[in-house]
Amino acid sequence: MAGSSIKPTPLLKDELDIVIPTIRNLDFLEMWRPFFEPYHLIIVQDGDPSKTIKVPEGFDYELYNRNDINKILGPKASCISFKDSACRCFGYMVSKKKYVYTIDDDCFVAKDPSGKEINALEQHIKNLLSPSTPYFFNTLYDPYREGADFVRGYPFSLREGHPTAVSHGLWLNIPDYDAPTQLVKPMERNTRYVDAVMTIPKGTLFPMCGMNLAFNRELIGPAMYFGLMGDGQPIGRYDDMWAGWCVKVICDHMGWGIKTGLPYIWHSKASNPFVNLKKEYKGIYWQEEIIPFFQSAVLTNECNTVQKCYIELAKQVKQKLGKLDPYFIKLADAMVTWIEAWDELNSPQGKSVEEKPATNDNAK
Amino acid sequence: MAGSSIKPTPLLKDELDIVIPTIRNLDFLEMWRPFFEPYHLIIVQDGDPSKTIKVPEGFDYELYNRNDINKILGPKASCISFKDSACRCFGYMVSKKKYVYTIDDDCFVAKDPSGKEINALEQHIKNLLSPSTPYFFNTLYDPYREGADFVRGYPFSLREGHPTAVSHGLWLNIPDYDAPTQLVKPMERNTRYVDAVMTIPKGTLFPMCGMNLAFNRELIGPAMYFGLMGDGQPIGRYDDMWAGWCVKVICDHMGWGIKTGLPYIWHSKASNPFVNLKKEYKGIYWQEEIIPFFQSAVLTNECNTVQKCYIELAKQVKQKLGKLDPYFIKLADAMVTWIEAWDELNSPQGKSVEEKPATNDNAK
Repeated sequence: MAGSSIKPTPLLKDELDIVIPTIRNLDFLEMWRPFFEPYHLIIVQDGDPSKTIKVPEGFDYELYNRNDINKILGPKASCISFKDSACRCFGYMVSKKKYVYTIDDDCFVAKDPSGKEINALEQHIKNLLSPSTPYFFNTLYDPYREGADFVRGYPFSLREGHPTAVSHGLWLNIPDYDAPTQLVKPMERNTRYVDAVMTIPKGTLFPMCGMNLAFNRELIGPAMYFGLMGDGQPIGRYDDMWAGWCVKVICDHMGWGIKTGLPYIWHSKASNPFVNLKKEYKGIYWQEEIIPFFQSAVLTNECNTVQKCYIELAKQVKQKLGKLDPYFIKLADAMVTWIEAWDELNSPQGKSVEEKPATNDNAK
Repeated sequence: MAGSSIKPTPLLKDELDIVIPTIRNLDFLEMWRPFFEPYHLIIVQDGDPSKTIKVPEGFDYELYNRNDINKILGPKASCISFKDSACRCFGYMVSKKKYVYTIDDDCFVAKDPSGKEINALEQHIKNLLSPSTPYFFNTLYDPYREGADFVRGYPFSLREGHPTAVSHGLWLNIPDYDAPTQLVKPMERNTRYVDAVMTIPKGTLFPMCGMNLAFNRELIGPAMYFGLMGDGQPIGRYDDMWAGWCVKVICDHMGWGIKTGLPYIWHSKASNPFVNLKKEYKGIYWQEEIIPFFQSAVLTNECNTVQKCYIELAKQVKQKLGKLDPYFIKLADAMVTWIEAWDELNSPQGKSVEEKPATNDNAK
């Protein structure tokens, strides 16, 4: 039975990197210190490279600014967004670890209903190390959690589960609303602690938020591209959504699972809804076409690696969404560039990160 | 926005029946009295018709035993299980209300984490009266609940939602496990209160439990057939599962939603795992074929009513599952008989329930 095989959660110290876009608030790192200090941090600075981020003592980190990205990727740096937190995906590319956790700098440690501080990373690791169940819904949620199991009527042949590629955590306090909803409900706060983790079923898309997200980089890393957002681009705030739609289609094709639910972080600050509206308005319109596109996207049997899946998706984006706006042609090209850059940095024959970034980590 | 339109939950006194299989424990009704007394009860006695169930004063009820079922349905009574709580579906057929709530007699009032008694019926009504969202997953669960909404990236065109046909409630204390899991984990109790309601996505099957279940009878009633179980049949404990698989396929086809999660009831007593194993063992084997059958079942555009969908499913059951065991040929025939009986009792031209059962309700 599932629940009886639960083991203490390993720390995965040498197997997980924490990737953070620009840290504007150094309280952020102080608050997370007890949880993050054992891990290596990769900080990707999204704005002016001349501004320096002062990382407090004791953290093991490397920091990349735009100049570093340009030096490392050369012309391929065009696929990495500028002046937008979407640039964080560069961190996924340069990481050499099996797992990645990414978190926004306005997300703090949340408390569970008993008042205990939530170790978000520990829960993400539990989620990633236990299987997913994308082919049949379990009404008692994650059957691998302590105190739970598969309920009556759940086929035994499906109880082994499938590898978990993504763990999508949630947010207490400020919910992740779009600008129109923010404007209509400026005071709404998420106070409901839902004590559940579940697999998003195969064939179902979801809105993946990058605020509190962990993934198995070895499995799904090459599809975790956050697109072209921010400076010079017609939209923003769709970086994580875009990645989520691509990732879900590819996980469904590859037979991997995506979990959502616990852990919660405390999302401290609502971003400005008027600024968000400006970033989002094209996306709000476009997503009505993008969702059906991803819902009906088909990957053939030849697509037997994430890279091949992603290149195939890029081709379909160009063909089918290119008609919607020339932006998608540019995005499709950037998707291909992203894979080329990923392979260059990650294949055994590929170049290593010769241009060393700012770091305090001499052991690397 | 969704959450802002929440209104106080109506009682639906004249629109909802409570259907209960044999009540072996009269504490059951006393415990539920404050919640059930406003409603009409339909009690369907599964065993020996000579035994009388003494319903406490104050409840508005009608009671059917096997003799009543035989008199009312004639030869078509063959589709109603005998000596098995699956007979409860006869109550769905004779009800004239828009909504039905069904509950087992070993299910008591549960308490929420604050210690407050849970009004299960009120939550089911909330679930049934608010739309479902089967086409896209909302990470903050039911977007129509107070304090929740659709998150960023949820297509606006899908925010109206779709009619909710079924509300599947859960159980604290004794979880709904199959016999093998009961045997392996005899002491496991469900103590986790998950404060969530969610739509099971289109295309995903789930194990529907009949312990704590509400549905819109006008929408999905004719598909809520609990099959042939108990006396003279090779399996038991698959009545609700069978109904759930049929109902899910039909709801997906018709564009209706099924919600699961809240409300909880307190499931007081584990049934005997050895007896359960005897009832279940063929089902445990068969479900490995049944699930793929339902996962791949296709209903054509001609199936534009629940009755037509159900007859078509019966045909496919006979064709495809008949090979597995002759039981499925008998079951497929019973499915057709069920629809004939349903239509007879429920069409405007159909016969009314002339043979009046035991009742205290003179107002009917």
